[in-house]
Amino acid sequence: MPPEADMTYESRDERLAAGRASYEAVMTYPGPGPTKPYYDGGVVGFVFAEMWPRPGLSRRDRRWVTLTCVATMGAHIPTQTHFHAALNSGDCTLEELDEFTLFFGTQCGWPRAQLVDQYVEQAANEIGLQRHGFERWAEPCDPDVRHARGRAAYEAIMCAPPPVNDTVFRRVGYLDYLYGEVWTRPVLTRRERRIIALCGAAIVQQEAEAHAYAALKSGDLTFEELQEIVLHFAVYCGWQSGALLDDIIVAAAERVAR
Amino acid sequence: MPPEADMTYESRDERLAAGRASYEAVMTYPGPGPTKPYYDGGVVGFVFAEMWPRPGLSRRDRRWVTLTCVATMGAHIPTQTHFHAALNSGDCTLEELDEFTLFFGTQCGWPRAQLVDQYVEQAANEIGLQRHGFERWAEPCDPDVRHARGRAAYEAIMCAPPPVNDTVFRRVGYLDYLYGEVWTRPVLTRRERRIIALCGAAIVQQEAEAHAYAALKSGDLTFEELQEIVLHFAVYCGWQSGALLDDIIVAAAERVAR
Amino acid sequence: MPPEADMTYESRDERLAAGRASYEAVMTYPGPGPTKPYYDGGVVGFVFAEMWPRPGLSRRDRRWVTLTCVATMGAHIPTQTHFHAALNSGDCTLEELDEFTLFFGTQCGWPRAQLVDQYVEQAANEIGLQRHGFERWAEPCDPDVRHARGRAAYEAIMCAPPPVNDTVFRRVGYLDYLYGEVWTRPVLTRRERRIIALCGAAIVQQEAEAHAYAALKSGDLTFEELQEIVLHFAVYCGWQSGALLDDIIVAAAERVAR
Repeated sequence: MPPEADMTYESRDERLAAGRASYEAVMTYPGPGPTKPYYDGGVVGFVFAEMWPRPGLSRRDRRWVTLTCVATMGAHIPTQTHFHAALNSGDCTLEELDEFTLFFGTQCGWPRAQLVDQYVEQAANEIGLQRHGFERWAEPCDPDVRHARGRAAYEAIMCAPPPVNDTVFRRVGYLDYLYGEVWTRPVLTRRERRIIALCGAAIVQQEAEAHAYAALKSGDLTFEELQEIVLHFAVYCGWQSGALLDDIIVAAAERVAR
Repeated sequence: MPPEADMTYESRDERLAAGRASYEAVMTYPGPGPTKPYYDGGVVGFVFAEMWPRPGLSRRDRRWVTLTCVATMGAHIPTQTHFHAALNSGDCTLEELDEFTLFFGTQCGWPRAQLVDQYVEQAANEIGLQRHGFERWAEPCDPDVRHARGRAAYEAIMCAPPPVNDTVFRRVGYLDYLYGEVWTRPVLTRRERRIIALCGAAIVQQEAEAHAYAALKSGDLTFEELQEIVLHFAVYCGWQSGALLDDIIVAAAERVAR
Repeated sequence: MPPEADMTYESRDERLAAGRASYEAVMTYPGPGPTKPYYDGGVVGFVFAEMWPRPGLSRRDRRWVTLTCVATMGAHIPTQTHFHAALNSGDCTLEELDEFTLFFGTQCGWPRAQLVDQYVEQAANEIGLQRHGFERWAEPCDPDVRHARGRAAYEAIMCAPPPVNDTVFRRVGYLDYLYGEVWTRPVLTRRERRIIALCGAAIVQQEAEAHAYAALKSGDLTFEELQEIVLHFAVYCGWQSGALLDDIIVAAAERVAR
């Protein structure tokens, strides 16, 4: 059965009013007045009137999609405003955004994480939040113990055997550090890290099917939730990238069903 | 028959002088003096001396390629200067750039469109232009009517039957909104939207062949125009991305010929 | 035989101290104190403690990977700090960074090169460096001579026959300009240009296998060096992109072995 259009409005004015209310709830400041196609026909009329209020995914989950996407787009003001809004709305804590910054750095590159760090810092200062210690990384430093931990984590997270371990990247970067130290950290759940990793993977078009498959196979995300992630992702990364991710989640669901 | 090098110069000095004149005509301010390889060997010596003055594509068409590419690169100053130049040269009106902003947002993501919106606004202020109303979006809001309009628009634009409608993204994002509301808007022609969509698709390497095919099949763009778009695109997004798009337009032309 | 973890530390404190020392040596200013997961668990604890000090690739080679990656990420502060550090450390000269800017522009697009140019200029001013002339481009301008030079250069650089020359891009952009004028310029070696081109190609996922193959086939880079480039690249562009490049260098090595 084909999906329905969940958000429908009787008139253009009702749609714009709903979009402005949604904008203010999400962004924590009033939305723009009627000015131009980009706002009325796009930001307010679709992004906030029709996409953000959809059922099927919590507003907190939608934050992870949004934050991952804006931070990869090189768009400074949306990065600034969305990290501020995530914190200011109470949807995410400073500790969680700090942990997001590290995880996002591994998924989308350290230079982009620097921008995130800068705006998380700024938002925390503006809102007046303090840090109270944090988890550094898991002991021990022993490379073999860490490597074994990475292999076990990979298997549990990706629902697949670890990759053949015959390059520096697969050993040092992938299994030892990314899976052996980062995925196993506290503060963000495995399910939340999946949402971030899936979006990051879809942006660079690499490993997205494996993440979608594991999300479904593990039961961390349903196919209905993945569909909402795709629509949300498409808004923040563009329809073409959304079309790709849409095909990927359908393929992953078929693989799980087999 | 292999293509010719259309722009040829007798000497290095003639080439640089032509590049500087072309730079000033396009950017609406004087080009840089001789200083370093990036300018002399690149920006002036190739981009403006050999690429922009080429025949086969109007300067206005070249604007759409340029604006789409600079706005996806996360490059603030080129985004600022090119949107200003598009407006200041008279090649594009404020109404058209407003419409571009919305359409570009759907193609390349809302966060990047925010940057575009910011610099269009700034350029309009600097040049002293006012807005005189704008088209919001097509009535009715009825979801089934909109959906039917989206399916019809998809078929006409993409010269292909609409995709299977079995996910939220395909229904709500793709057919209802992108094709049912955005592609059918006024101000920019279907041909101009194709140029923008093709460049956006090529940047994320998704659906570019379908857009190139439909552009040729509909008669909106010729293979010669597509070739000029590829060279222009390569300059603004890099030669590697250009090589990919070049292969794609050749494949699309072969599919149309069959 | 699987690769080892080359950098190992006895304790968390030793690891952080080594990371801070490495940070200061590379960036030419002191690293951040213990504050949050992004720095302790990421930037200091992994990027500078475990990645930068690895054997197998010189610090100067690591600069080319870093500079290419940060400049494509739309990340202004990392671009600013890394170009300053490359110059301030003495690892790269101003003449070399000028040449990098032009070459990078062809690989990753002119708008991104503008950002590079801006920060190279700023770093040179801050450090107090002057330019002393530069190479513009190779004479003659005659298009047929240039085209022949491009074909010969392509064959020598890519260890493969030039592509079929039947589009404007392949003729004017690819063979005449990129190979006929840019790859053959002085100041940066072919080996250095390969590192930059490989990273640029991996970012847009186009032609990376061809560059990795040619790097190995020509003897310019060893498989061990390519593995270090992948790990370094993964840090600056994200693990997902690293995973792709890792698969690509393995495939290229297998093709060379055949």
